[in-house]
Amino acid sequence: MRKNQCEVGLIRVITSSSQDFVNLHGELIENHFPQLKVYSRCIPDQPTGIYDAATLQQAEPKVLQVAKEMADDGVQAVIVSCMADPGVDLCRRHLSLPIIGAGSAGAALCLSLGHKIGALGITAEAPEVVARCLGANLISYLQPVGVQNSLDLLTAVGQAAALEAAWELKDQGVEVILLACTGMATIGLADKIRRTVNLPVIDPVVASGLIAYFTTTKSNIEGAEIGV
Amino acid sequence: MRKNQCEVGLIRVITSSSQDFVNLHGELIENHFPQLKVYSRCIPDQPTGIYDAATLQQAEPKVLQVAKEMADDGVQAVIVSCMADPGVDLCRRHLSLPIIGAGSAGAALCLSLGHKIGALGITAEAPEVVARCLGANLISYLQPVGVQNSLDLLTAVGQAAALEAAWELKDQGVEVILLACTGMATIGLADKIRRTVNLPVIDPVVASGLIAYFTTTKSNIEGAEIGV
Repeated sequence: MRKNQCEVGLIRVITSSSQDFVNLHGELIENHFPQLKVYSRCIPDQPTGIYDAATLQQAEPKVLQVAKEMADDGVQAVIVSCMADPGVDLCRRHLSLPIIGAGSAGAALCLSLGHKIGALGITAEAPEVVARCLGANLISYLQPVGVQNSLDLLTAVGQAAALEAAWELKDQGVEVILLACTGMATIGLADKIRRTVNLPVIDPVVASGLIAYFTTTKSNIEGAEIGV
Repeated sequence: MRKNQCEVGLIRVITSSSQDFVNLHGELIENHFPQLKVYSRCIPDQPTGIYDAATLQQAEPKVLQVAKEMADDGVQAVIVSCMADPGVDLCRRHLSLPIIGAGSAGAALCLSLGHKIGALGITAEAPEVVARCLGANLISYLQPVGVQNSLDLLTAVGQAAALEAAWELKDQGVEVILLACTGMATIGLADKIRRTVNLPVIDPVVASGLIAYFTTTKSNIEGAEIGV
């Protein structure tokens, strides 16, 4: 670990035996925030991740268990890297360290850059956490045509559909675009949309990193010295 | 300027001939985010600041004028350091650099740490920007008893009233406290409340600094390299 780095745990809610896969979000965060050292783990026995109410419910106690182990290992904050914030409320009730959900972190960050927020996702409706955080500030949500899962985003057709949806959000008057799918993070979609439609685009994984940086930097929490 | 620092403009909406006074918020931000060099200026001819609809309206074109001059001077983002976000929308329409309002930045950051937000302020009602950003997530707003302006916060009685109000918010079930007054920043109230009631407390000036750090760090905007 580099001097002055803070240690953060990151939980993936899709089970994989590939540590390279599990590390993807954490590496993205470390590249954006070199102040952070991110330790990534996945929850057990959910190789297809979270896709409905039942799989969300299954995942929540597993997220708490992994978060507890990470807290015992000494991390200073835990990121749950999924737009549904699975287990975030549960962890906040049981653990005393900061718990950051990609859904709420991404949605929150949008509000610092504008009022009219548009979101792009891979589900028919906006994730509930995003809708609740943004309330009336979420003026539009779109699922790119033909994009049903993260794999579709890896195709040229899927990426073109995502850009087309971003243009549509701009035409509707949105000031900030939220990527409401963490799978959009690792393919660099935020940057592609920014360059194309020229609007601020918030990537939920990077947003989680920003909040982790904020909550683990002692001066932000305990107050920096200022002579007043 | 230190190597790798980003230059940020900060606008105070109360006119003062004391550069030390004008610099207070910027110094706080620099202490929390050494990556930033903050240049502070105040708007002209409003020695009593913004306190109603008329003074808000008077301030807005002045904020735009100062922001334009700061943009011409080469800053990479502008912070309007007031909970009412005066001129923020106007500046966003006329300028292409990130415009950050203390009101929306503070409110936004709260949502990354919890859903049930309580705010403390020096006015009878929560600032409109805060209410709009937080929507149904703002479950309580309190004005500490006897605190009508920032000067009242400098007294022992005022600070005790602020702590009492913070306890009341905790009793009401809030998960995060927003200081809805930038005057609460420079007296270190966030830290006092955190230590006393043991809840996350968001200081709007520090929140503005975090967003300025985010928007002026090239890797956050243009995407850091990641091998996928």
